[in-house]
Amino acid sequence: MSRFFSSVSKKAGKKPGSLIHIGKKKTENVRITLIDYDENNYMQKEVKKIEECFPFRDKKTVTWINIDGVHDTSIIEKIGSHFGIHSLVLEDILNTSQRPKMEVFDDYIFIVLRMLSLDEKKGETISEQVSIIMGRNFVISFQETVGDIFDPIRKRLGEGKGKMRKTGPDYLSYSLIDAVVDNYFYILEKFGERVESIEDGLIDNPKPETLQKIHSLKREMIFLRKSVWPLREAVSSLERSESPLIDKRTRMYLRDVYDHTIQVIDTVETFRDMVSGMLDLYLSSISNKMNQVMKVLTIIATIFIPLTFIAGIYGMNFDVMPELKWPFGYFMVWGVMIIIALVMLLYFKRKEWL
Amino acid sequence: MSRFFSSVSKKAGKKPGSLIHIGKKKTENVRITLIDYDENNYMQKEVKKIEECFPFRDKKTVTWINIDGVHDTSIIEKIGSHFGIHSLVLEDILNTSQRPKMEVFDDYIFIVLRMLSLDEKKGETISEQVSIIMGRNFVISFQETVGDIFDPIRKRLGEGKGKMRKTGPDYLSYSLIDAVVDNYFYILEKFGERVESIEDGLIDNPKPETLQKIHSLKREMIFLRKSVWPLREAVSSLERSESPLIDKRTRMYLRDVYDHTIQVIDTVETFRDMVSGMLDLYLSSISNKMNQVMKVLTIIATIFIPLTFIAGIYGMNFDVMPELKWPFGYFMVWGVMIIIALVMLLYFKRKEWL
Amino acid sequence: MSRFFSSVSKKAGKKPGSLIHIGKKKTENVRITLIDYDENNYMQKEVKKIEECFPFRDKKTVTWINIDGVHDTSIIEKIGSHFGIHSLVLEDILNTSQRPKMEVFDDYIFIVLRMLSLDEKKGETISEQVSIIMGRNFVISFQETVGDIFDPIRKRLGEGKGKMRKTGPDYLSYSLIDAVVDNYFYILEKFGERVESIEDGLIDNPKPETLQKIHSLKREMIFLRKSVWPLREAVSSLERSESPLIDKRTRMYLRDVYDHTIQVIDTVETFRDMVSGMLDLYLSSISNKMNQVMKVLTIIATIFIPLTFIAGIYGMNFDVMPELKWPFGYFMVWGVMIIIALVMLLYFKRKEWL
Amino acid sequence: MSRFFSSVSKKAGKKPGSLIHIGKKKTENVRITLIDYDENNYMQKEVKKIEECFPFRDKKTVTWINIDGVHDTSIIEKIGSHFGIHSLVLEDILNTSQRPKMEVFDDYIFIVLRMLSLDEKKGETISEQVSIIMGRNFVISFQETVGDIFDPIRKRLGEGKGKMRKTGPDYLSYSLIDAVVDNYFYILEKFGERVESIEDGLIDNPKPETLQKIHSLKREMIFLRKSVWPLREAVSSLERSESPLIDKRTRMYLRDVYDHTIQVIDTVETFRDMVSGMLDLYLSSISNKMNQVMKVLTIIATIFIPLTFIAGIYGMNFDVMPELKWPFGYFMVWGVMIIIALVMLLYFKRKEWL
Amino acid sequence: MSRFFSSVSKKAGKKPGSLIHIGKKKTENVRITLIDYDENNYMQKEVKKIEECFPFRDKKTVTWINIDGVHDTSIIEKIGSHFGIHSLVLEDILNTSQRPKMEVFDDYIFIVLRMLSLDEKKGETISEQVSIIMGRNFVISFQETVGDIFDPIRKRLGEGKGKMRKTGPDYLSYSLIDAVVDNYFYILEKFGERVESIEDGLIDNPKPETLQKIHSLKREMIFLRKSVWPLREAVSSLERSESPLIDKRTRMYLRDVYDHTIQVIDTVETFRDMVSGMLDLYLSSISNKMNQVMKVLTIIATIFIPLTFIAGIYGMNFDVMPELKWPFGYFMVWGVMIIIALVMLLYFKRKEWL
Repeated sequence: MSRFFSSVSKKAGKKPGSLIHIGKKKTENVRITLIDYDENNYMQKEVKKIEECFPFRDKKTVTWINIDGVHDTSIIEKIGSHFGIHSLVLEDILNTSQRPKMEVFDDYIFIVLRMLSLDEKKGETISEQVSIIMGRNFVISFQETVGDIFDPIRKRLGEGKGKMRKTGPDYLSYSLIDAVVDNYFYILEKFGERVESIEDGLIDNPKPETLQKIHSLKREMIFLRKSVWPLREAVSSLERSESPLIDKRTRMYLRDVYDHTIQVIDTVETFRDMVSGMLDLYLSSISNKMNQVMKVLTIIATIFIPLTFIAGIYGMNFDVMPELKWPFGYFMVWGVMIIIALVMLLYFKRKEWL
Repeated sequence: MSRFFSSVSKKAGKKPGSLIHIGKKKTENVRITLIDYDENNYMQKEVKKIEECFPFRDKKTVTWINIDGVHDTSIIEKIGSHFGIHSLVLEDILNTSQRPKMEVFDDYIFIVLRMLSLDEKKGETISEQVSIIMGRNFVISFQETVGDIFDPIRKRLGEGKGKMRKTGPDYLSYSLIDAVVDNYFYILEKFGERVESIEDGLIDNPKPETLQKIHSLKREMIFLRKSVWPLREAVSSLERSESPLIDKRTRMYLRDVYDHTIQVIDTVETFRDMVSGMLDLYLSSISNKMNQVMKVLTIIATIFIPLTFIAGIYGMNFDVMPELKWPFGYFMVWGVMIIIALVMLLYFKRKEWL
Repeated sequence: MSRFFSSVSKKAGKKPGSLIHIGKKKTENVRITLIDYDENNYMQKEVKKIEECFPFRDKKTVTWINIDGVHDTSIIEKIGSHFGIHSLVLEDILNTSQRPKMEVFDDYIFIVLRMLSLDEKKGETISEQVSIIMGRNFVISFQETVGDIFDPIRKRLGEGKGKMRKTGPDYLSYSLIDAVVDNYFYILEKFGERVESIEDGLIDNPKPETLQKIHSLKREMIFLRKSVWPLREAVSSLERSESPLIDKRTRMYLRDVYDHTIQVIDTVETFRDMVSGMLDLYLSSISNKMNQVMKVLTIIATIFIPLTFIAGIYGMNFDVMPELKWPFGYFMVWGVMIIIALVMLLYFKRKEWL
Repeated sequence: MSRFFSSVSKKAGKKPGSLIHIGKKKTENVRITLIDYDENNYMQKEVKKIEECFPFRDKKTVTWINIDGVHDTSIIEKIGSHFGIHSLVLEDILNTSQRPKMEVFDDYIFIVLRMLSLDEKKGETISEQVSIIMGRNFVISFQETVGDIFDPIRKRLGEGKGKMRKTGPDYLSYSLIDAVVDNYFYILEKFGERVESIEDGLIDNPKPETLQKIHSLKREMIFLRKSVWPLREAVSSLERSESPLIDKRTRMYLRDVYDHTIQVIDTVETFRDMVSGMLDLYLSSISNKMNQVMKVLTIIATIFIPLTFIAGIYGMNFDVMPELKWPFGYFMVWGVMIIIALVMLLYFKRKEWL
Repeated sequence: MSRFFSSVSKKAGKKPGSLIHIGKKKTENVRITLIDYDENNYMQKEVKKIEECFPFRDKKTVTWINIDGVHDTSIIEKIGSHFGIHSLVLEDILNTSQRPKMEVFDDYIFIVLRMLSLDEKKGETISEQVSIIMGRNFVISFQETVGDIFDPIRKRLGEGKGKMRKTGPDYLSYSLIDAVVDNYFYILEKFGERVESIEDGLIDNPKPETLQKIHSLKREMIFLRKSVWPLREAVSSLERSESPLIDKRTRMYLRDVYDHTIQVIDTVETFRDMVSGMLDLYLSSISNKMNQVMKVLTIIATIFIPLTFIAGIYGMNFDVMPELKWPFGYFMVWGVMIIIALVMLLYFKRKEWL
């Protein structure tokens, strides 16, 4: 349940913009990584105190501050006051149950994404909030846990290949969003495997536990959709925003991310249709199988009931029962019984009841 | 039912704008609280007569009149004539079955919200109308019952912390709306707990009373949606309205409330999907369980019917029945019966019917 | 059926604008009521011939001609030619199966509404077309039957209270629309009572006739929706129309009617959700009850079948059956039987099958 | 099936605009009717060769060429080249599986409609394409079969009554569209009768063949909707098109046709809701009836099973069975049996199982 | 599954625009066909190296390069750098799981389509990506496999008939799109045949394997919709795009393709409704048939159970059982039994249970 609903209520009554961390504390230590680069230089270091990053604000190089762990409100507060971030934005970073969204301010753009990962043990998808603040020459990204999703970007930056070092914070932000969206494909692939594994034998051999599995797939789907749908609007409005912070050339890349988002949504909707079809199929199959069982059992009973009746007849104790005296009476009764049973079997066969 | 449908019909035929209270009289006494403040001063008192508040209209300070209980039409009428409120607005305040909405007038903005609370005894959500009239230097709020939802705001005002004392009635109105919306999260959390408690054991141990519970959840959901959906539009049009009564800086806060509203709607829709999935699951589980029972019972019957038939055979009274004379006939029959029973059991087992 | 589909086909092939009354002739005599008023004067009389009303067209006072019964095409035709009404409008007045709509012409506005009433005997909602033509200084309203829904308006006009006498035909038209919409609330309340009465005992004591009742509720709902949904658009476009015939101040009242319409639609949709939920609930309950019955019956059979088998065993006529000779054999068999029955009962109890 | 899907594939690979007739050849001979009129003159004749119509193109009078049968591509081709019609339009006329649509060209407007008729024998609705080309002073209409739907228009034209002779090809085109739409009402009425006839006794006496009937109604509905829905857009865009070919006064008539179209759609949707409700009702009723049968049968079995057990008891052959010696034993057993049966019957009655 | 979800994840972490082929390698050798034409000349040849095509870029004639097989990234890369194609476009060509889309660049238009074909063996629809780059005087098309769908276009070009040779790359591109869309009709026809073949005997003789077939139809439908729906928007935005690369006259042809697309979507939706109706029908029929069987069996049991009871009565061993002594007792019991059986049969018949 907690995945569906973060307890925002503990904030109720507090003044707006008051900085309280909402959500599970997912990591012990806050890790701050500082990257500073331009076309020729690249510097990466892990810093202990957020204050170490502040001098970079006024340098012309692009500065990327990545913060893993958002439960330490003092860090967020300091960043807010140094970089001039609105208190409502800081509140949104701390309250980790935001929907994906994009907000344009005069000096910076604020982007919220949801990153998905799999809890292999529970078979559940876990959602984590990634917040990005993109300014004129800096990008600050916030993750709830220490993750490796941005590692390839760091590597590419370090190697200095591609466009990344020659472009500004808008392209860096795009790369971060792209990394999050690309990760969805991985999640969806895993999801697809689960769908496939359930579907095998759904018709021939439906089992009660399959219902549980399909139900859990359905819930995962509700969860996935909640993360993915608003992303579409966020990316789309980022692409179309008229903020000078986003270069024209970067917009084309954002359109590409938008396409990927649509593809993710498409796949999620396809899965939804498939899972819903699987539920129908499961229910039909299970009821089919049950009906088969009941039919066979009922046919067995139906064949023996008239025979038992005949046996009952000749178990009666009437003084005068001529058949009882016949020397072959017993065997004739057996014959009659066998004939009745065969006739019934043939009839059921011809009616395709067997 | 009354929660779904207030008897507006008693107004039918009355002239428009005629002031009649519609809805349950939820409190005995009308409580009027007057708060007056600017950056330096703060005054709060409970007044007996609404007329005591009128002199504050012409002062430059921000005046907040909170009225708990709207069944006394004379008070509403006096406010209307003193503050120049349109009679249709007064009618809407009195008729407590309004949908959330926002209407911009030249001199004031009229906002209707629905506040939810839980009737713990009945397990029902109760909805109460909160009306807010926001003028150039005053805010008048109307509640149906004496509630404590606005207490934190009063406290913050009294303490003079934050922006509130330095800003105008627009920020105060925002705070009131924010308080109502934040309260939804509390309601949703309680709701989520109920959903969770029903879901436990839904598959393994479905019970008839669960159906009733799911049904009541569904109805609560209909009720919730009805309160929450129109709120979205109301807040959104408040944010985008071009009224000079709303400061540019306050709009950002309204956007934040809008985000919260979307989050509430999202959660309500998620719950709706979940409850609807639970109903399907419940019905499948209950029919599954029933089928299991019937299958076991039918199998018992099916095993004994052929055996009873054999017993019936040797209960017949034919003169000539050779087996009856065999010394071990009786025991052989027992043997045959046991073998038949075992063969059937094995067969059912192999077919996975047991 | 006829409620859902008026036989418009009898008009097929006729030229457009040809005046033929379509629909049931709901009243014998056409009643024409003429009301003429300005701020100071008020005149109301019932006229025999429509021509008596014509002189009022050129007076400055507001003239309201109310016509109950639209089957007399000659009256409609005369009004059309005297007041310069387009023949298509006249056709729409006569063809009483119109959807609610609003059409703006240069000199007048044409409004079609559907008025609902209850046929208490059949338990059906009846829909009647109300057409309103609003000109510069006149309002002509057409009803299919003699109704009392506009009586309060006449009374208010006569008493001269409120704004009505001081305002023009736009406010009068608004009042007529308001009366029709307010009447919906009455219908909905009755509807709500029916919903409530069906819901009682739906889970505990579902009865076959309930299905019929729910089905008829559903059909009423289809009927209601058909009348109410288009009204929304009609009222909304009336409010937003730029016709000079509607005063700015009246628009606010139209917005109020619009709000009421939304509320009506909201309630109808809520009822729809509820009725649809009731059907699900009914079907679940009835199948639940049936399952209970079958389970109990099957359990009875299952307990007796093994016992009957045992009785059958000792009814066999083998020469050698040692138990038959035992002095306490009979009582021991009874004992065994009772033990078997008890064990089975206990087993079923523990499995919660009983 | 062929009603749902015309084999357009035989055109695949052909160049666009290549004239191939697609659809069933529904009439043997192509009938060409030429009507030429202005306010004072009227001429109607059946022509053998399409070339006879060509001189009328340059006359100022309104010329209406009606062509029944579109399988003769040479005629269509000649019309195309003489009147300057785009080859894609000609292709659409020949390919009789178009959706209703409207296309504005510089010199003419192209309208496609679907005319419905009933195949009384099969109980199926048949759809036929009606294409209309409306130029500055001519209208060319194409039907697949010789139909009488436009006869009333010819008659009105011949009689010279009404506006028709005084107006241009736009009003004539409107009249043709109106005739097609009015015909829908006839089809819907027949449809309504079928719905009604199925509904009678749906609850009290559901029969297996009803399922087939409801299913076929559903399919007809899919078919109807497919023809009717796109019509709405076509008529609406015709009304709003800025083509000078349509006179302002005619637009009002088009609005009227639009209203009728909406009404048709409304009725189709109402029927859809009703048919879908009928299916639910049928399934509930049939399962209800079946349950009743099974319950009665099971109760009979349940009453006799304990009695048979008792009879089995006293059919045992134990040496010591005191009851067998009692002089009234036999009658007492009968008494016990009757009491047990009565008690069970009473119990079932009280439980409302009977 | 793989049809629904291409494993895009292997690209995750790569830099955007990096050229990696995603999807199955569907053909061994890449086939490059070069066609160059103007109104008077036509040249077609198969080239080994893509470089052979490059000189044609600067010629005034229209050049069409068709590439079958997109797994060789080096070819795509060379085309990209020579023709100045954006790296994201190249990425989209290589990643063969794109949705249909259209993107306008300054110098070229990029179009992605999905071509469907049938795998007759598996009875599955296979989807293949067709990418088209249309420049000022060239068209480059990419297919995943060697296909013959564009053969008629080559033939028409070679023969020099029609408009094709006289028009530019926009008309050629249109022809390619048209060929892909026309191919859908073929697929839909095959689909329609499958729907029809399943429908026969669905009510009279439902079989378990039908469920599997309907389910597979449903999945094909999900697949079809996914390919077809986005096409609508792509074609529509191509038609409305303001790119100078598309001639006004070609737009009319694009509108025609758009109409076809709508028709395809319409048919897909109709099939969807039909398949969904078939599932309902199948489930009703199968449960109906099962109920019939159970009813007959239960009736047989119900008739014999009372008779067996009577036989049991006279199998009791009471000393005093007067009937046993009656000379015709045995025959009277037979008579009574036959009467009871007949009465029950008559009763069931009259109740229409048989």
